[in-house]
Amino acid sequence: SSATAPIRATLFPGDGIGPEIAESVKQVFREAEVPIEWEEHYVGNQIDPRTQSFLTWESLESVRRNGVGLKGPMATPIGKGHRSLNLTLRKELNLYANVRPCYSLPGYKTRYDDVNLITIRENTEGEYSGLEHQLKGVVESLKYYSSGKLEGCEYLFNIKAHGRERVSAIHKANIMQKTDGLFLKCCREVAEKYPEITYEEVVIDNCCMMLVKNPALFDVLVMPNLYGDIISDLCAGLIGGLGLTPSCNIGEGGIALAEAVHGSAPDIAGKNVANPTALLLSSVTMLRHLNLHGEADRIQNAILSTIAEGKYRTADLGGSSTTTDFTKAICDHL
Amino acid sequence: SSATAPIRATLFPGDGIGPEIAESVKQVFREAEVPIEWEEHYVGNQIDPRTQSFLTWESLESVRRNGVGLKGPMATPIGKGHRSLNLTLRKELNLYANVRPCYSLPGYKTRYDDVNLITIRENTEGEYSGLEHQLKGVVESLKYYSSGKLEGCEYLFNIKAHGRERVSAIHKANIMQKTDGLFLKCCREVAEKYPEITYEEVVIDNCCMMLVKNPALFDVLVMPNLYGDIISDLCAGLIGGLGLTPSCNIGEGGIALAEAVHGSAPDIAGKNVANPTALLLSSVTMLRHLNLHGEADRIQNAILSTIAEGKYRTADLGGSSTTTDFTKAICDHL
Ligand SMILES: CC(C)[C@H](C(=O)O)[C@@H](O)C(=O)O
Ligand SMILES: CC(C)[C@H](C(=O)O)[C@@H](O)C(=O)O
Repeated sequence: SSATAPIRATLFPGDGIGPEIAESVKQVFREAEVPIEWEEHYVGNQIDPRTQSFLTWESLESVRRNGVGLKGPMATPIGKGHRSLNLTLRKELNLYANVRPCYSLPGYKTRYDDVNLITIRENTEGEYSGLEHQLKGVVESLKYYSSGKLEGCEYLFNIKAHGRERVSAIHKANIMQKTDGLFLKCCREVAEKYPEITYEEVVIDNCCMMLVKNPALFDVLVMPNLYGDIISDLCAGLIGGLGLTPSCNIGEGGIALAEAVHGSAPDIAGKNVANPTALLLSSVTMLRHLNLHGEADRIQNAILSTIAEGKYRTADLGGSSTTTDFTKAICDHL
Repeated sequence: SSATAPIRATLFPGDGIGPEIAESVKQVFREAEVPIEWEEHYVGNQIDPRTQSFLTWESLESVRRNGVGLKGPMATPIGKGHRSLNLTLRKELNLYANVRPCYSLPGYKTRYDDVNLITIRENTEGEYSGLEHQLKGVVESLKYYSSGKLEGCEYLFNIKAHGRERVSAIHKANIMQKTDGLFLKCCREVAEKYPEITYEEVVIDNCCMMLVKNPALFDVLVMPNLYGDIISDLCAGLIGGLGLTPSCNIGEGGIALAEAVHGSAPDIAGKNVANPTALLLSSVTMLRHLNLHGEADRIQNAILSTIAEGKYRTADLGGSSTTTDFTKAICDHL
């Protein structure tokens, strides 16, 4: 309500189409009278020695202080001696779980109309260790898990937030017995605490086959880092692509950094034709994290109704609306 | 032709439904008068110290001597101190590439009717190293590639055999710069020798999204071991499952071991209801390897026509035919 002090949230508009789609979110939030005050941060144009990347220390401090944030696409500047912006955010803020709800959008036709699942990905370890080695003709990459850090598993069973009934742990423990074995062990331990949740284990190759045959078989999928990277994109493909799927990173101390995971699309930047749906739906996941479910529901319904009606759609969805017209249509639904 | 000496080929009927579907292949080959003489080998019931597995040394020698073989599903016996049968075959025979043609079957409806691709997977290294390590709370798995062993890359560009125009190298070199970087380097070197082939590189997460949105974008996909495991099953799912997709392993010295990659289905073993299609289509890839294209074409057409007509289909395809009736229908088409 407008009487209480607004909640401060960090906003990274990001690069390319980022500022345009971030503007769309700001407009929708104003229209819906969401009690959020944005603290805007842009990627710097030089390496900040404290982050070893183009992300400024101040921007990370902002997320830590606020506990919530929203992030547009960031293009990592080309060059050596610094880290990818996305990976830096994950590591520095210990964003240990990446959560992507993925559901068929009413009225937007793909080959599937029966997708309704959540992928949850371990987000900082596994195949993303960055530990590699070359010795004569042999190259090695290290995948590792530290047992204390599989908090993601606990997070996923938090059905109070999700309203879900089934968790599938995706693995390849028949081949990677130690790493994926530890992942499954952690999952099993958490599963035991939630007897009301159906728990199953599915080998990743079989999982992908089942997903494309019958995605309705799945409810919540929890996965090591790389498998989550692969399967979350596969699932996005089932419903139309990364332009339609929200994402939220959960980190140490309950931090939530929602983000659009699509690219910065420099070719269409500044042309007012980008689709803001992924960032808008991501902002909805941020609101849910803040327990602002009323606002979240209203905004989500307005987005889905606008897409379902089909009168205002951006070019990527086969329409010819501008970003601003599509945003205005959503505001009109509020 | 029947005047020349028959070609000897090793046959592993395998476990569970294996013997029934192998019988189907033998019958079809007899009917088509394929000049092949089978050397049958079964998985042993004790560990052969020379292979450290239940595979007998004699059976491996048979494949080495013949240079060609066909393999049904093998269930690795439970217990410690021995290796998986599938992995043992790959390592012992250095089956460095796994090739799976995958195409929509006319008349058998799935959500996709536009799949026509080949996945080629590096088959012995990468994430399947078996090298793992545990130290206090940290577990590690090693992925490695040795530069001399990426022959798979060369194999894939062999379009004379495939009649294909485009090769997509699938990778995650933005994260695993050294291992997937070496894989891409090898692919690029081979691509340069085949200027008539269009070569592209696609990140694995994006590849999976594109595959489920529009599989017609792909022609030949070449991949490190685990990505191949995942994507070949995903592609099988697009056309109906592992019961329909052939597979052939290419090894040192030109060995070709074709195999059905589905499981041994112990629940339906011996009931004369198993679908022999995957093993039959795999036997066709073996014939092509032997340059018996006439026989291969005739058998492949008979299989596809039988499925397309739809009168005789096994239970997994929604029909009620027995394995023997389905096989007889194929023979009638020859
Ligand atoms: C950009 C890339 C490093 C990233 C990843 O691999 O995690 C992306 O694919 C994602 O899913 O957020
Ligand atoms: C059974 C298993 C070890 C095997 C693999 O992972 O390679 C299977 O999935 C395959 O694709 O042949």
